[in-house]
Amino acid sequence: MKVVRRTRVIYSFSPRRKPVEYVKPQELVLFETEDALGGQVTDETVSLNTLDWAKVDGATGPVFVKSAEPGDTLVVEVLDIRINERGVMVTIPKQGILGGKKFKPSAKLIGISRGRVNFEKGMRIKVNPMIGTIGVSPASGSVPSGFLGRHGGNMDVKELTAGSRLYLPVFSKGALFAVGDLHAVQADGELCVSSVEVAGEVLLRFNLVKGRCPVWPVLESRDSFAILACGDTLDEAAVSATDCAVAALTREYDWAFEKAYMFGSLAVNLEINQAVDPKKGVRAVISKEFMSRDSLLT
Amino acid sequence: MKVVRRTRVIYSFSPRRKPVEYVKPQELVLFETEDALGGQVTDETVSLNTLDWAKVDGATGPVFVKSAEPGDTLVVEVLDIRINERGVMVTIPKQGILGGKKFKPSAKLIGISRGRVNFEKGMRIKVNPMIGTIGVSPASGSVPSGFLGRHGGNMDVKELTAGSRLYLPVFSKGALFAVGDLHAVQADGELCVSSVEVAGEVLLRFNLVKGRCPVWPVLESRDSFAILACGDTLDEAAVSATDCAVAALTREYDWAFEKAYMFGSLAVNLEINQAVDPKKGVRAVISKEFMSRDSLLT
Repeated sequence: MKVVRRTRVIYSFSPRRKPVEYVKPQELVLFETEDALGGQVTDETVSLNTLDWAKVDGATGPVFVKSAEPGDTLVVEVLDIRINERGVMVTIPKQGILGGKKFKPSAKLIGISRGRVNFEKGMRIKVNPMIGTIGVSPASGSVPSGFLGRHGGNMDVKELTAGSRLYLPVFSKGALFAVGDLHAVQADGELCVSSVEVAGEVLLRFNLVKGRCPVWPVLESRDSFAILACGDTLDEAAVSATDCAVAALTREYDWAFEKAYMFGSLAVNLEINQAVDPKKGVRAVISKEFMSRDSLLT
Repeated sequence: MKVVRRTRVIYSFSPRRKPVEYVKPQELVLFETEDALGGQVTDETVSLNTLDWAKVDGATGPVFVKSAEPGDTLVVEVLDIRINERGVMVTIPKQGILGGKKFKPSAKLIGISRGRVNFEKGMRIKVNPMIGTIGVSPASGSVPSGFLGRHGGNMDVKELTAGSRLYLPVFSKGALFAVGDLHAVQADGELCVSSVEVAGEVLLRFNLVKGRCPVWPVLESRDSFAILACGDTLDEAAVSATDCAVAALTREYDWAFEKAYMFGSLAVNLEINQAVDPKKGVRAVISKEFMSRDSLLT
């Protein structure tokens, strides 16, 4: 097993980044990750003005996956997610879905024990450890790791948990994969812009599908596939997710557009990932009963 | 039990409408409902141009609920939903999430038997009979029954099934309630603008909470409450749903805004009802473990 330390952190995805590790398909790789605030908040009285904002939303990597070429699919199996025993949440003025309201900056340290997040005395929420940021380099240029797009990034999908499998399109040689920003628990929407941000470790295994890739990242859970689209607005993201799902249905069943569009109304659920980042994320979810992996790759 | 026939159909909610029936709180009322296309599509070769579009999106009613006054909550218990054995779907150019694409008008008759929708040979989907349109009259003016708003209307919430309970704000004496537009099954988003549109019967029981009402309609399911907000865009609807949910959390726990906002990030899921009507619908869902009915009424 290879280990990538949490000191190997990047703040943007780019094909120009030098890999910090080289791994083969099927090899186990453990990524240590810092929390989304870069471990800077250790005290609730901290002034958020004093934080180094260049050190938030980091991801551990990038790792070069041997044999990965542009046009391939990088398959990421999430084997395990371990989170630390203390997380942190923040409210930041102008941020989150209610960023238009007046409110104060604040920080809250949150203990995590026995499978529960201890928000307050008597207010415990079941943990659902998940990956906030996961992706590969874009074909050119540089995308901040706090953003999301076709390359993945800060998607904040609460279903991205141990046992799931993510299909990412490869845009550059070696894929240049990185992962970070674990959440102990997050609801769909991530209303206030932060979840229980927590450091931890992610155990992954990579694989490749050569010569084919998805339009948007695709998440495979036990019973369903989710197309992870994004856009400047939720509405735009919903259009992209729907477009991709209906096209996949036409391939799966050799249907005309109209029939696939109808069937989508019955069997494709549009769900919200997060509605608080510069790009908003919507997933189109369809049961494996009605969709095979092959129709999601082109 | 009172019965309201499906011939008693309205195409807009308005305080000026004459009630077709008077019912008391706790009385059982059976509403017969026509499908959303007014029963006009009985043949897949029908030209949608020949349909009378003034006769779509009807609702059965309105019913005057005794003692209901503006400022009260009309509690609607959904005791049973029975649907016919044949439904219909349509695609209509320019409509639905992919309305920007070119496609043909089309109609599809769909058999429903043994708890399954028979979309195609070998393609059966489990039914989930639900109410598309349900609401009361606004305070003034007139709202087409195909629209949605604070009064309810064409909300297309797939969780609005038998066993659920809907809390509607009352805006006029007697509430002037109507219901229609059953769906045999619908996914979140209602991508193509229609679901399996079906005629049927809905058995309801009304109750009142005097002098208090929700900001947006609230749906109570077995384990959760959902605030049913809407807006011109999904993003706008998400803001309204979040605003209402966070305010309810401040009431429930006597918390400052910041703490309620944080907790919302962990425990309030934003979900999409439909993204295809003139107003888009987003629901904020929170477990009953963390929310009581009282904090949702003001």
